[in-house]
Amino acid sequence: MDLKKGSDPFFKSLAASGPTRVEDNAMLKIQAAEVQSCLEEILLGRGAPAAHAEKVALEMTRNSLEGTYSHGINRFPRLVSDIDKGLIHMEAEPELISAFGALENYDGQLGFGIVNAWKSMGRAIELARVHGIGCVALGNTNHWLRAATYGYEACEQGMAGICWTNTRPNMPTWGAMDAHLGNNPIVMAFPYSGGDILVDMAMSQFSYGALEVAALAGRQMEAPAGFDSEGNVSTDPGAVLATRRAFPIGYWKGAALSFVLDMMAGALSLANTTSEIGKLGDEYALSQVFIAIDVARIAPREKTEEIIRKAVDDLLSSKPDGSSKPIVYPGQRMRATRERNLREGIPVDESVWELVLKEGV
Amino acid sequence: MDLKKGSDPFFKSLAASGPTRVEDNAMLKIQAAEVQSCLEEILLGRGAPAAHAEKVALEMTRNSLEGTYSHGINRFPRLVSDIDKGLIHMEAEPELISAFGALENYDGQLGFGIVNAWKSMGRAIELARVHGIGCVALGNTNHWLRAATYGYEACEQGMAGICWTNTRPNMPTWGAMDAHLGNNPIVMAFPYSGGDILVDMAMSQFSYGALEVAALAGRQMEAPAGFDSEGNVSTDPGAVLATRRAFPIGYWKGAALSFVLDMMAGALSLANTTSEIGKLGDEYALSQVFIAIDVARIAPREKTEEIIRKAVDDLLSSKPDGSSKPIVYPGQRMRATRERNLREGIPVDESVWELVLKEGV
Repeated sequence: MDLKKGSDPFFKSLAASGPTRVEDNAMLKIQAAEVQSCLEEILLGRGAPAAHAEKVALEMTRNSLEGTYSHGINRFPRLVSDIDKGLIHMEAEPELISAFGALENYDGQLGFGIVNAWKSMGRAIELARVHGIGCVALGNTNHWLRAATYGYEACEQGMAGICWTNTRPNMPTWGAMDAHLGNNPIVMAFPYSGGDILVDMAMSQFSYGALEVAALAGRQMEAPAGFDSEGNVSTDPGAVLATRRAFPIGYWKGAALSFVLDMMAGALSLANTTSEIGKLGDEYALSQVFIAIDVARIAPREKTEEIIRKAVDDLLSSKPDGSSKPIVYPGQRMRATRERNLREGIPVDESVWELVLKEGV
Repeated sequence: MDLKKGSDPFFKSLAASGPTRVEDNAMLKIQAAEVQSCLEEILLGRGAPAAHAEKVALEMTRNSLEGTYSHGINRFPRLVSDIDKGLIHMEAEPELISAFGALENYDGQLGFGIVNAWKSMGRAIELARVHGIGCVALGNTNHWLRAATYGYEACEQGMAGICWTNTRPNMPTWGAMDAHLGNNPIVMAFPYSGGDILVDMAMSQFSYGALEVAALAGRQMEAPAGFDSEGNVSTDPGAVLATRRAFPIGYWKGAALSFVLDMMAGALSLANTTSEIGKLGDEYALSQVFIAIDVARIAPREKTEEIIRKAVDDLLSSKPDGSSKPIVYPGQRMRATRERNLREGIPVDESVWELVLKEGV
């Protein structure tokens, strides 16, 4: 086992840098309104109902606008391909299966992931208005794209939001060679006038998308990314892409959390867990959970604002470690990215934009 | 920067072993009933109300019985010291601050952490019986010891449970030298007749307790544990204990999740965030959140059992990676540990037991 090979870049870069960021080099800059109407037109051309086309185009544009490029315009060709394969039933909306008080579950009927998830968090918010907290489980849905969307949806209504999704198997559990876990992203969000506090994280240390971007750029990952073909810990994205043995965050810890998130999503929606999704070939028929908490019902807004403000100030007063890593609170940078992209246009890879435009022909 | 020094043990041991386990060498074996009555007597001798003494003794014994030694008997001398310092108000019970539907918040009045947390999850369960889901925020409480306790409390009532606590600052955020984050353990649990599915995890990769145990044993950690005094990534527990720069799970990811958990706990309970707790000197007046979901209200038990069973079977069919790491689902090993310790007695370090007995004199 060659220890140096794997460790060298990790130990250097972990001390010096933060998570991967999309670089703006060699990018087109396109105004959000133009992107949105272009995506909407393509969806309408595919036969999507007007309201669904508008919503999906709006949210995918917003994802890119707010810096989640992987789940915005870059993902649009894949969305269209899923429509063309018949995986997305464009007319479908969530159908109530059962309800008890503040708890409901729905069949997503394989509708647009964004439409289903938005409506589900919306329903959780309505339930929270009545009961203080609301919970909606959603089965048989499609990829919701950017998880943060539904956390911000709750925050915009003054609510705390918690939501997660399962995925197809894409990560081995701890001690295993083959993928039986999803990377099951979770969002936790709390409304704050200075910029909502929001974490949006998958259970894998790096997504395969991030590994692919780094491999293309010839970059090593900033932290151990998984095992290589000889069972050594590796920061080489190509080596981990080859084994598909990506690390969960915190190794055994993220593996455990991933499994419990999957059990809750699958069982509360009476629908698929990751293991069942793995049998489908493509990634669809996912299960999700949405929880909204109406903070203002038990805590006056000015009091929670003050509690958050003091904690944010305290966090930002941390002593920098001398690296280039910025000290920020989760969610802090979204607004600045949004404002810059509104002003300058959204950076879009030229080849991706060509692919998008081709869908409209 | 000496890369080998830090990396060598990590890359060797990560491939070969799992998380730290307490070793049974040089341990007394004491029957659970004996431990429990001994702890109870000491608490009664300190003036604890009978019901509180019984509950605290029962749960601390159960923690050791079920393998969480760090938060069982081993922690009892610290509990007594907190009582003697006046940090724990032994008579106190949670007092309702405000309620709206399925959402309530309470002032823990600095009572026993176990009593307060048990009652809070109990109340969340009652709320879930009525509304399908229930949420209780609790401020001004003390250390709840083993986080899993309250997840199992929910599962015993057929409920899914989610709960978390904040702590004093004990972990720097990503890019920082000094600790402004807590390691804020979270529990997510789902009832399952084959053995409840439960994850109980702090946001730090290793607790300082685990680092201390490894340092005493002259062991390196199984994964990068934090930075050493020269800013290098280290698996040396002593080096990380010296800097107090322990890693969050998933580096920037665990740091972000930790902060959001803290914001939710502090703001929903209208009480302390980690930054405020840090000003107190000792660790008390913590904030916690308890959520229970009455699964049976929307999902027939036999259906959820079947969903879980299939997913568990699938996970356990993972192909082992040839290391010594066992492939298990989260929570799987608890019952076996409990049964062994019931049969053979609880392993207790002789010096710890002497300390406990001294409290009773």
